[in-house]
Amino acid sequence: MAASESRRDTAQPPKESLQFPVLSRVFLQPYLPVSLKSSSSPSAYPQTTPAKTSLPHVTLTYATSLDSSLSLAPGTQTHLSGPQSKAMTHYLRSRHDAILVGVGTALADDPGLNCRITGVGGYGGKELIGQPRPIVLDPSARWKFNAESRVFRTARENRGKAPWIVVAQGNEEKMSLEQRKVLGSYGGKLLSIPQRKPEMEDPTGEASTEAETYAALDWQSLLDTLAQQDVYSLMVEGGGTVINDLLHPRNAQLVNSVIITIAPTYLGQGGVVVSPERKLDSQGKPTNAVRFKEVKWQPLGADVIMCGRVEV
Amino acid sequence: MAASESRRDTAQPPKESLQFPVLSRVFLQPYLPVSLKSSSSPSAYPQTTPAKTSLPHVTLTYATSLDSSLSLAPGTQTHLSGPQSKAMTHYLRSRHDAILVGVGTALADDPGLNCRITGVGGYGGKELIGQPRPIVLDPSARWKFNAESRVFRTARENRGKAPWIVVAQGNEEKMSLEQRKVLGSYGGKLLSIPQRKPEMEDPTGEASTEAETYAALDWQSLLDTLAQQDVYSLMVEGGGTVINDLLHPRNAQLVNSVIITIAPTYLGQGGVVVSPERKLDSQGKPTNAVRFKEVKWQPLGADVIMCGRVEV
Repeated sequence: MAASESRRDTAQPPKESLQFPVLSRVFLQPYLPVSLKSSSSPSAYPQTTPAKTSLPHVTLTYATSLDSSLSLAPGTQTHLSGPQSKAMTHYLRSRHDAILVGVGTALADDPGLNCRITGVGGYGGKELIGQPRPIVLDPSARWKFNAESRVFRTARENRGKAPWIVVAQGNEEKMSLEQRKVLGSYGGKLLSIPQRKPEMEDPTGEASTEAETYAALDWQSLLDTLAQQDVYSLMVEGGGTVINDLLHPRNAQLVNSVIITIAPTYLGQGGVVVSPERKLDSQGKPTNAVRFKEVKWQPLGADVIMCGRVEV
Repeated sequence: MAASESRRDTAQPPKESLQFPVLSRVFLQPYLPVSLKSSSSPSAYPQTTPAKTSLPHVTLTYATSLDSSLSLAPGTQTHLSGPQSKAMTHYLRSRHDAILVGVGTALADDPGLNCRITGVGGYGGKELIGQPRPIVLDPSARWKFNAESRVFRTARENRGKAPWIVVAQGNEEKMSLEQRKVLGSYGGKLLSIPQRKPEMEDPTGEASTEAETYAALDWQSLLDTLAQQDVYSLMVEGGGTVINDLLHPRNAQLVNSVIITIAPTYLGQGGVVVSPERKLDSQGKPTNAVRFKEVKWQPLGADVIMCGRVEV
């Protein structure tokens, strides 16, 4: 089986391993999920109390410029944040059962979607302990992956888990038999989730926008399904469509915490922007789309990190 | 004369006075102009070395949401930042000879454009010491002010200086005789500045955009003129058109420092956004429009302040 052929000795952490100092971890603790899985190492820090729902703890995390751009143009990978922020992202991955990206990110970046913090499985640790499950949100089954896509190469090298791919119900057959074989042979799987039902009366009062024309999934169903698969904590990383959909007033209450990195630069007009759909108040006037509470700002290198919770 | 009729006792600071603690001032000092005017009180802090040019020190300062919006919609005043950030703005005003806003801000907010920090003239201090000169950038002479506009009421109450209004050369006559009389009677004045010459070959490679259709002034000429009028330090406060024009690659090198407040909220789509025109590199690919160096982040209330200098 391909997965074992190139199995490496994982006793020595490889040179790509990342360090995120314990002192830097402290400010993040109140915003992180409580460890629920036996595979997670116990933490010495005070943590968030468990959510009173059976849904996974959702942490939304990404890096933007001052003008809220994720990248210079759609499909372009842009290096925004500094090395410390990158190490933080990998540390955060080690603290979640699963990490989720949209298909746009998978297509643009061919990402490894693993955790490279020293000490996790594949980076000095045993087996795949501390490695999150990668989840790719691909409602229309557009991602034409194969065994050479980086996430599968990473799984083959025992440095990360194989992905779960989420498509909209009815689109399962759009994924080829060959792809399903690759997925299954690495221990990944295909999940199908209902599409969001269009609301009869949209509370935002907006006509359908570009973001609506993509097959928007029902986040509640997705999170229910993940909970049934023992995913108790989910880190949502991007890209723009996924983030704006999750920050939409109809979904924002599903987010337990946000950890946003801001880099001291303006990318300029034409980038992929995080800015949720506008919200209207009871008088029909525009009002803040999302407010955050319990906010903490932490400089990290040249960037700043904002931790907070959605005010609902 | 109207200006003396309602003169108030300025010995007691009125209740609208604002405090900005000395400890909070420290982090701003490296980004502030050196005091050059005899009317400014000497400072105990280390300061920026004087610029090697004869142009005024330009500090660009404003508050945005996480999605870089200044307000929910054009012409709408939006309260974004908290009380400490507001007090900081007034402190910063006391440290500049002049403060500048675009006509859009004058029309939307009818602003007082004075400084309310305890100890400056009109707020416990003598005469108008520490009060900046308000400057309204109004290339097309659209602002139909009168003696009841707040900036003139403020001047009448000896709580601020009368404004200078900057129009594009050729538009002087668009300001009515009545308005010019009001302006003169309070000690304000009308300045006229050449419009920016359209470049034969635009280095950004962009076709003219909405921002270009407004009568863009030549910032170099404006700053030259202000220096001749003994304005050695200028704080540019907004709004969106002015900020984006000054952050444009052709102007950004005129900015000595930026002090940006970010509030922990998304205003959502449709707001007035700070995002300069995109910049293209020598291969014609989009690249960061503006980068900042010597960056410092300082949490202040629920907001964060970013201080920095433009990397040129």
